[in-house]
Amino acid sequence: MTLRAHKGHGTENDFLVIPDLDGHLELDDVAVRALCDRRAGVGADGILRAVRPEHESDWADPGADFAMDFRNADGSVGEMCGNGVRVFAAYLERAGLLRAGQARIATRGGVHTVTVAGPDTFTVDMGAPRVHPDVVKVRTGELVVTGTPVDMPNPHVVVAVSAEQLAGLDLSEPPTVEPAGPAGQNVEFVVRDGARRRARMRVHERGVGETRSCGTGICAVVAVLAEDTGAWEVAVPGGVCDVAWTDDGGLLLTGPAVIIADLDIDLAGLDVSGELER
Amino acid sequence: MTLRAHKGHGTENDFLVIPDLDGHLELDDVAVRALCDRRAGVGADGILRAVRPEHESDWADPGADFAMDFRNADGSVGEMCGNGVRVFAAYLERAGLLRAGQARIATRGGVHTVTVAGPDTFTVDMGAPRVHPDVVKVRTGELVVTGTPVDMPNPHVVVAVSAEQLAGLDLSEPPTVEPAGPAGQNVEFVVRDGARRRARMRVHERGVGETRSCGTGICAVVAVLAEDTGAWEVAVPGGVCDVAWTDDGGLLLTGPAVIIADLDIDLAGLDVSGELER
Repeated sequence: MTLRAHKGHGTENDFLVIPDLDGHLELDDVAVRALCDRRAGVGADGILRAVRPEHESDWADPGADFAMDFRNADGSVGEMCGNGVRVFAAYLERAGLLRAGQARIATRGGVHTVTVAGPDTFTVDMGAPRVHPDVVKVRTGELVVTGTPVDMPNPHVVVAVSAEQLAGLDLSEPPTVEPAGPAGQNVEFVVRDGARRRARMRVHERGVGETRSCGTGICAVVAVLAEDTGAWEVAVPGGVCDVAWTDDGGLLLTGPAVIIADLDIDLAGLDVSGELER
Repeated sequence: MTLRAHKGHGTENDFLVIPDLDGHLELDDVAVRALCDRRAGVGADGILRAVRPEHESDWADPGADFAMDFRNADGSVGEMCGNGVRVFAAYLERAGLLRAGQARIATRGGVHTVTVAGPDTFTVDMGAPRVHPDVVKVRTGELVVTGTPVDMPNPHVVVAVSAEQLAGLDLSEPPTVEPAGPAGQNVEFVVRDGARRRARMRVHERGVGETRSCGTGICAVVAVLAEDTGAWEVAVPGGVCDVAWTDDGGLLLTGPAVIIADLDIDLAGLDVSGELER
């Protein structure tokens, strides 16, 4: 059996988009792991299955244009991903599926509107951040600092550091957070340049390690560091995004996304049995 | 511009095969790095460009059926790769380009004959190993042992260890070899089970780190550990290969190779300029 897919990335967070508008595909966790295996499979941080919302009635708002069935590389179900939804939009644009440059995307984390913002550039409404009033203690290597918890709604802790501290961070081990969130948290270390409305950050994602980018993390950083409304530019190792406040206290994330290859995957060639044994 | 390619792997050493039989393609090191980038590109350990030998007259034997222009993921030119040439053969078989299940493949490391050995299984003549008479000292972590240098013709050092030592090895740092080869060396750590004619190994490749498999390393191991002629089975982390001696002292490597996806790559979407800056 041949599976049609499209590989793309947003700030180097990479995904396989699998079109399945009529909801015929059964995608189990073994198949997801086999597809995302970077050597025996195609390789990706996750899978984004594109389906009409009526075929995912358990979780997808029927008023949305498309449902994004997001799976992490380990096979687990994901809710929302700020980089993934832009890659999803890049696929929709390429496939001629956007109306007036826009679509409402149902995710397990609610409906998000994506809009074409420029060539290979998309804007996503990420919803309102919730900044916690109490700071927490963060340790990583020799560094002991305070951080601010933010829900996007997934849990983050934002830590302001100096440029020297940012460059010297060793994030090969997870930072420890006290008190830790009940489900863990992503930790963003950020250098703020308020005069230019810019920030640079590195991120450790729970269960993954240091990554090239994290869309909700970029928003969490702006929620903590930007005292006023307006737009900020945030650089991550994998690229640069813009974040703007909306009138009702939400955040709009604008950043690059591109589909780099169309694939016909030979499922018989994927080592699903071997994957089970590993 | 769209580039047609095929992604496959042999014992989890993965490659993009790019058909270019008429030799029209200019593949510079920037493009190779962009294609092999695992997040911003397609992702692979290397590129295998398939071309007729008359279009690579600088290095390809004109009597061969095909030339394999092998590039490492860092853009550098490669000579020969025992896993890569099987993936190359899997592409040729899939494309209907094998005659009687066989082809003579010109590489920068000489001509090698590949033969279909079974479903998704190929045999490559790897040439004769050269085992050096003098042992060298190998250190990794707490372990200090002796190893035997072997040229395949690329440089290897083969180290016999116990099963416990193999399991406990930390190969995150390169082993030190004294005296080291002038161009460095791959180091294979191997547990031998002579009664069953089997071995298990792990490998540290120079300039890369620990890998899932190394075709020439598998042959180097058999050259050192197999006192007599005949066939051996060697397990690496990415799978299992067989190695047999030929009457004239050469080695035949038989192992799996599979093409798992056909790709149309959008070269405009590859971040070549970003790649230059990294």
